[in-house]
Amino acid sequence: MAGGKGVAGLPKGLEERRPEIEDALLAVLPAEGAEPAALVAAMRYGVLAGGKRMRPLLFLAGADSAGPERLPADALEAAAALELLHTYSLIHDDLPCMDDDSLRRGRATCHVVFGEATALLAGDALQTLGFELLATRPAGDSRAGRRSDAVARTARAIGVLGMAGGQALDLGATGVEIPAAERRAHLRRIHALKTGRLIRLSLELGALHVGADAERLRGVSRYGDALGLLFQIADDILDVTQTSETLGKTAGKDFAQEKLTYPSVFGLAGAFQERDLALASAREAARDLEGGSGLLAGLALFAAGRDR
Amino acid sequence: MAGGKGVAGLPKGLEERRPEIEDALLAVLPAEGAEPAALVAAMRYGVLAGGKRMRPLLFLAGADSAGPERLPADALEAAAALELLHTYSLIHDDLPCMDDDSLRRGRATCHVVFGEATALLAGDALQTLGFELLATRPAGDSRAGRRSDAVARTARAIGVLGMAGGQALDLGATGVEIPAAERRAHLRRIHALKTGRLIRLSLELGALHVGADAERLRGVSRYGDALGLLFQIADDILDVTQTSETLGKTAGKDFAQEKLTYPSVFGLAGAFQERDLALASAREAARDLEGGSGLLAGLALFAAGRDR
Repeated sequence: MAGGKGVAGLPKGLEERRPEIEDALLAVLPAEGAEPAALVAAMRYGVLAGGKRMRPLLFLAGADSAGPERLPADALEAAAALELLHTYSLIHDDLPCMDDDSLRRGRATCHVVFGEATALLAGDALQTLGFELLATRPAGDSRAGRRSDAVARTARAIGVLGMAGGQALDLGATGVEIPAAERRAHLRRIHALKTGRLIRLSLELGALHVGADAERLRGVSRYGDALGLLFQIADDILDVTQTSETLGKTAGKDFAQEKLTYPSVFGLAGAFQERDLALASAREAARDLEGGSGLLAGLALFAAGRDR
Repeated sequence: MAGGKGVAGLPKGLEERRPEIEDALLAVLPAEGAEPAALVAAMRYGVLAGGKRMRPLLFLAGADSAGPERLPADALEAAAALELLHTYSLIHDDLPCMDDDSLRRGRATCHVVFGEATALLAGDALQTLGFELLATRPAGDSRAGRRSDAVARTARAIGVLGMAGGQALDLGATGVEIPAAERRAHLRRIHALKTGRLIRLSLELGALHVGADAERLRGVSRYGDALGLLFQIADDILDVTQTSETLGKTAGKDFAQEKLTYPSVFGLAGAFQERDLALASAREAARDLEGGSGLLAGLALFAAGRDR
């Protein structure tokens, strides 16, 4: 399982916490062999396919940078919820009626293995399980307000004005002629909704669960916006510069589907420039937030550097 | 819009509250014409197709029967969440990879009108919006515990061990030979998960939001289990005794797909007997709960009587 391997370039302070995330994921998923068997197997297959566990790690980074309280142990299972929500979106995005992708994280996609109906339900049930975890972790009457706040923020980040809305805009923009003057704004908007919101949210929820005040939460959000952009630009660049084998998913797919991407809108050199601008923003936001302790700045470098 | 019409046989105390539910649904859905346009249109189409609004009405019935507090006005928007979650499940169930149904509530199904990808996302976003409403209504710090409890209960009712799990079992049982000795138990289990849990939950959430104690909540749950069973048996009977026109959806579909249903497992006469047993249970639970005020008992009669 790829979950056991290290991720090159990830700051050590995060890399060493990945086993805790893997443990939390195993703890919250239905047990192997549990009923309904096909649905449980599909959920586990989608989540336990490896992956960097970036969103739960961002939750931990958000908590580390935002103090003042210590993160309750069971908050790791709230962090795991972010991975379930991310996996739900991947499973649905890969379906034939969406991106129709057969390769993900180096393996056959969920619907290829389990059939479309079961993959659809696995995505549905992973969304639901994500909300269950956020509503119940960390436990305790005194934390009920943080839990309901986490659920509400998460719903806004992944709903019609967030991730699902970004996916809809992306579908609407694919293979359609967008006027040149609007292409850049449209691209930014799609990315901010489709992937940026969940990345920012992951940092925010970590901060929220250690009692960050409003000002600190704003700083975390600013950093999260820059980091989300950075990840997306780097991903778009990877799609055109890497092979499927290196990537673990079908390379050149965005290009073949005439999707709006940074390379397609800005050209490859322009995309690298945009990436460097986003990196500068993320590092500046990190400096304001952590005063140089380096975890968030290191994450930004990691996000930018994956294309090298 | 069918939402404006009355539903024959529904107890008057509930029937007269349907306009409040329609208002709450309109208040919580994204506005007509809002972006992303196709996704918003598909969400609205699915929800505003009429329907009895049974689950929000059950929320109100649960609140009425469980006192002691008055239901906060914005709790109606939490009740509306139940209709969004129900609609999400219908949109996904109707997709070609699931039941492949083209008619629902007398109109073309969501994917027929908007395409599969947009219908998939509309279902996804309706699930998300449902959780957002439950996490934010009714407002107030003092109610945060009830809100996070409502989210957690809802997630359990519709997730891998609830509605989605029931759908998966149903898929697994369709067109497959189930040993005769197991057919009855399997049928009950599928129905309890697929539709029963959400009906029981609707009553429970209403009770929860007016401060019902544990014993009263148990009574509400008992009634909810019987009522859910009653609705399902009556629905199964309707599928074989009514035309598509009367039904507003494709009749005889369950039979054609060789689904496990009460008429297919018990025979039609046996299904009527099962229905009468469930009606007796529901009326008994209603009597224990409301001491004869009649709303819950009336609902049970309504649920049983739709096949006449």
